[in-house]
Amino acid sequence: MAFSPALTRLIDALRVLPGVGSKSAQRMAFHLLQREREGGRYLAQAVEQAMASVQHCKACRMFTDSELCDICSNERRDATLVCVVESPADVMAIEQNTDFTGRYFVLLGRLSPIDGVGPSELGLDILRSRLADGSVEEVILATGATVEGEATAQYVADLARQHDAGISRIAHGVPIGGELEYVDSGTLSQAFSGRRPF
Amino acid sequence: MAFSPALTRLIDALRVLPGVGSKSAQRMAFHLLQREREGGRYLAQAVEQAMASVQHCKACRMFTDSELCDICSNERRDATLVCVVESPADVMAIEQNTDFTGRYFVLLGRLSPIDGVGPSELGLDILRSRLADGSVEEVILATGATVEGEATAQYVADLARQHDAGISRIAHGVPIGGELEYVDSGTLSQAFSGRRPF
Ligand SMILES: [Zn+2]
Ligand SMILES: [Zn+2]
Repeated sequence: MAFSPALTRLIDALRVLPGVGSKSAQRMAFHLLQREREGGRYLAQAVEQAMASVQHCKACRMFTDSELCDICSNERRDATLVCVVESPADVMAIEQNTDFTGRYFVLLGRLSPIDGVGPSELGLDILRSRLADGSVEEVILATGATVEGEATAQYVADLARQHDAGISRIAHGVPIGGELEYVDSGTLSQAFSGRRPF
Repeated sequence: MAFSPALTRLIDALRVLPGVGSKSAQRMAFHLLQREREGGRYLAQAVEQAMASVQHCKACRMFTDSELCDICSNERRDATLVCVVESPADVMAIEQNTDFTGRYFVLLGRLSPIDGVGPSELGLDILRSRLADGSVEEVILATGATVEGEATAQYVADLARQHDAGISRIAHGVPIGGELEYVDSGTLSQAFSGRRPF
């Protein structure tokens, strides 16, 4: 029983959103139609506009509406420090939670030969040309603490080394407020090997 | 740090969806931008079109793209039986899980004087005119098994009684306090076949 082709299409389309199955797509569609027509129109325009105008920064691959993102075009951000992350969400998290004042490079993924993700998919030619002009003094590796994240960090470190840039890796260990007994063994092992004078 | 006004607006707009907070709105926006531009355009069009063309059936208030929904315009659906439900989701659930062949009336809510929801908000003048033409022999009360659902059922029963229509209530196989749309198909089917004079 279709009732409304437009409704059926709406429910189907909502499933492109991550974590939205058919049941919640239906719930969302009914909510928009019954209580949020105005919000629905706003959503349609916002999605349309974002799909058309959001692009990747030419220098760091972060999302932006212009050629360069707000950070890359901000002269007060330290261009000698480049923090390499996997995703735009990582940039957001670092901006919101740290006082980092350098710049970024967003890989939009991590090395995964099995999935066909190699250096060129990660835009590493762009990073290479930033390193080549000699302005970068330190590359901060902030890829994830996973096997693929580590492999990616290794690859980027090699690249930085070729251009005589300094290299650091963000610390991995027991999270602040974390109880030792609930931390997984890999983290605990890393926390031990990464111990520092106190 | 805004990065992209279009992205900020997209994240904000996604929050009109029920159950979507700022964290999942951001995750959805990034997903669309990184991996689902095509799906995003499809979503924008589908939302736009649904907001513009989905309306309520003139006879039963179900969602439809026309004046009358597929059920009300289907001569093979038994017009002597009218099942009264709270929401379009309830109609979907009944259609998918029972062999009910009558018609519906969708209240789009339930009586709740505190929230300003009275008989006219529930479209009961439309139901009244359907009862007045004498074609309805039985009104099946399928409002939720909640205090408000029961009060609504009582109100609709009084209305049906005034027009000499038979009245039944779906059996309380539906768990007390449960919303119809979340009930499993067996229970819902049992509740239908076990309906009793009200
Ligand atoms: Zn940038
Ligand atoms: Zn109808």
